[in-house]
Amino acid sequence: MSDETQPHPKTPSVSYSITVRLEVPAGASAVGELTSTVESAGGLVTALDVAPSGVDHLRIDLTAATSDTDHADAIVEALEAVSDVAVKKVSDRTFLMHLGGVIEVATKHPLRNRDDLSMIYTPGVARISQAIAKDKEDARRLTIKRNSVAVVTDGSAVLGLGNIGPHAALPVMEGKAALFKSFGDIDAWPICLDTQDTEQIIETVAAISPGFAGINLEDISAPRCFEIEARLRERLDIPVFHDDQHGTAIVVLAALENALRVVGKRLDSARLVLVGAGAAGTAVLKTLVHAGAADVVVCDVEGIVHPDRPGLDPSLAWTAEHTNAARLTGTLRDALPGADVFIGVSAPNILGAADVETMADDAIVFALANPDPEIDPGLARRHAAVVATGRSDYPNQINNVLAFPGIFRGLLDAQSRGIDMDVLVAAAEAIASTVTAEELGPNYIIPSVFHPDVHERVASAVRGVVERSRA
Amino acid sequence: MSDETQPHPKTPSVSYSITVRLEVPAGASAVGELTSTVESAGGLVTALDVAPSGVDHLRIDLTAATSDTDHADAIVEALEAVSDVAVKKVSDRTFLMHLGGVIEVATKHPLRNRDDLSMIYTPGVARISQAIAKDKEDARRLTIKRNSVAVVTDGSAVLGLGNIGPHAALPVMEGKAALFKSFGDIDAWPICLDTQDTEQIIETVAAISPGFAGINLEDISAPRCFEIEARLRERLDIPVFHDDQHGTAIVVLAALENALRVVGKRLDSARLVLVGAGAAGTAVLKTLVHAGAADVVVCDVEGIVHPDRPGLDPSLAWTAEHTNAARLTGTLRDALPGADVFIGVSAPNILGAADVETMADDAIVFALANPDPEIDPGLARRHAAVVATGRSDYPNQINNVLAFPGIFRGLLDAQSRGIDMDVLVAAAEAIASTVTAEELGPNYIIPSVFHPDVHERVASAVRGVVERSRA
Repeated sequence: MSDETQPHPKTPSVSYSITVRLEVPAGASAVGELTSTVESAGGLVTALDVAPSGVDHLRIDLTAATSDTDHADAIVEALEAVSDVAVKKVSDRTFLMHLGGVIEVATKHPLRNRDDLSMIYTPGVARISQAIAKDKEDARRLTIKRNSVAVVTDGSAVLGLGNIGPHAALPVMEGKAALFKSFGDIDAWPICLDTQDTEQIIETVAAISPGFAGINLEDISAPRCFEIEARLRERLDIPVFHDDQHGTAIVVLAALENALRVVGKRLDSARLVLVGAGAAGTAVLKTLVHAGAADVVVCDVEGIVHPDRPGLDPSLAWTAEHTNAARLTGTLRDALPGADVFIGVSAPNILGAADVETMADDAIVFALANPDPEIDPGLARRHAAVVATGRSDYPNQINNVLAFPGIFRGLLDAQSRGIDMDVLVAAAEAIASTVTAEELGPNYIIPSVFHPDVHERVASAVRGVVERSRA
Repeated sequence: MSDETQPHPKTPSVSYSITVRLEVPAGASAVGELTSTVESAGGLVTALDVAPSGVDHLRIDLTAATSDTDHADAIVEALEAVSDVAVKKVSDRTFLMHLGGVIEVATKHPLRNRDDLSMIYTPGVARISQAIAKDKEDARRLTIKRNSVAVVTDGSAVLGLGNIGPHAALPVMEGKAALFKSFGDIDAWPICLDTQDTEQIIETVAAISPGFAGINLEDISAPRCFEIEARLRERLDIPVFHDDQHGTAIVVLAALENALRVVGKRLDSARLVLVGAGAAGTAVLKTLVHAGAADVVVCDVEGIVHPDRPGLDPSLAWTAEHTNAARLTGTLRDALPGADVFIGVSAPNILGAADVETMADDAIVFALANPDPEIDPGLARRHAAVVATGRSDYPNQINNVLAFPGIFRGLLDAQSRGIDMDVLVAAAEAIASTVTAEELGPNYIIPSVFHPDVHERVASAVRGVVERSRA
């Protein structure tokens, strides 16, 4: 690897944001120095609140974005070095936000008196129970089941952090639940499992399923996630969705459709190289093939996947059978020359600018490893026409948040019993079509998760597919 | 049984409340007739909203409490018979309230922009996960675990409805969660299990436990509930509480302490007869014995429990060993003469006024079967000095809602790893002491669940016990 593959120096981020409480003499010139001190130290001041403190001092709450915790410490030190300034307290905004968790339960009706109690709880609730005992389907009308999704993890493959267990996974599941509510108006509750045994996970999720209208599996490592999802889909009468697989696949397909429009190529004739054969990679492959991709070569850590490679597991055997018609062998560098599309869901910095140069003209590079992509997007852009990453500080962020709120909204509204490939492709098309022909360009192939319509469009497309499949 | 044991005729209840939308000509005299029509039919008008409808009609929404659904139908018929009145729509208020369920998930922080997203979710949330991965205990500080309780049922013994299954149990668990929030500010989520197998229930609850700081078992039938609770208490590092057992036991103890104060008797010298050896009865017995009750005779459907009775299961064998020192045999009627206290957690109308007359002077009768008590409280009151029931339309309602919100609030605040008998007795004393010496009387032995202080007093007592046990 050349130096060129090194990631760019980190820029200050709100997710490493601190609030420093300072005290300065009221008449001192120090106030003016504070902002410049933070900026000289590489931080970014985002707020400054000043209030009197006693008769002759000011209390200043300075909020600054920093690059990481070491950088935050360095900034606090720099502030301490300013004369007349006393640092009273340093708070980490992200930690403050997560104190006690980021979601809670709310009651839909006030419980003020005995009348409320007699309808929400006993004796009135017995009539609701009797109605459901007569017809189980009424639970989808008369209970929270209608709008509830379990966000289930075993903590085995959390973000880029690996197997950190169910307790450490909980804040991520909470964040996910907050996104479900904010973008899909869905009531999602985290279920963090104290087991990583495939059978026990399946039994547990099946056991708790009556109270939910959907299951979102999250951050469960491959290959267990494939079997868990497949078996639960077969067993339950509610949709089961593994976001790491299908969420990623949907957004990749949406972004790829638009990227191909930008360069005037077609999915069914483009040459694709896909790196990564884990949960996400396998789902991306299957979804792309279902959507019409005809020429795909898949690589993993051992190189190009082909039928003669020894030791293929069932998932890789499927891949070998359905890809690489030219029977290429070797490494990623043997697959890349002439490729129209590179899609990486693998590891940081495995690609250099020189590698991208071997690709076809108007190449498309999706470097989706998190938090550090397969290639620095600035380097990739030297040759590639369209570049996308999972990062929020570059254009074209491939973000699962574009998919799962709308997908579940549509599935719940249609009271769907399951989920299939047509739903995933329809969701991808809805995301892609949110970008108008006028807006479409190399730096805008995919809408923001804050796009005002995207989640509703996905929901509506999904609802349509489910309802048509019933008709 | 004599006619005397028949329950009183049902009175209109808000839990059978309907809203009828009517249309009448603007000038007609019908409006005045509506209230009297409902009242002649035995209903109780609780609201009347009048609005113009077109140029010459009025639209009237009349809300009325009725006794049951047949009664509601009869009232609608009576309204239809009034001349000039057209019935447009009939809504059931309790069903309307439960449409889509009574609880939901709320986000604690708005998710407005990328900054919010980067702190609540990725990349910022990774730092929270890393902190917990380093020290699992941080999950009690940085996640919803701190304030979350799973309300777990298998739907096998729901209210008075029996084994109606997990879907039909869901509205009851939702109601319970609403009470947890309203009275204890606790985030409780219903978990309705698709299994009634003891081992599977234990495994499932253990598997989902990392995300919760407490488990509230609910409406699980005896004797499975005993083993499930005991095994989970041993296995988990969070408190496990079976409300049907311990909630009932706490409130019975609280009410009994105050009832004994009213009649000037003492728990350690009173003669108690307890009918019912299911989940509630067994827990009531153990709690009373722990609190000092020395002379208790227990009856079940087969009569008095004594060591020579054949076929005693382990729970009844414990009962036989710890009660009935006089070795009484026979039926409830053989146990009752001379008793100071009758406590029934059994079946409706098993007792007549004549039976109560055989009890000691200043007898105490707790007839707690739901919805219809062991004896009509009016009949019991002819001889007994203090009568309590589970009903909300009589004084002295023994209501579990007095216990569980405060108990869990105290346990969560103290980050308790478990729960023991001292916690239950302290909670009972806190409830009992909410009634002041001036307030105490035959018709006020127990506070209302809407008493402004009761839940906080329970929480504070429980927290005190847990903290002292650590010191």
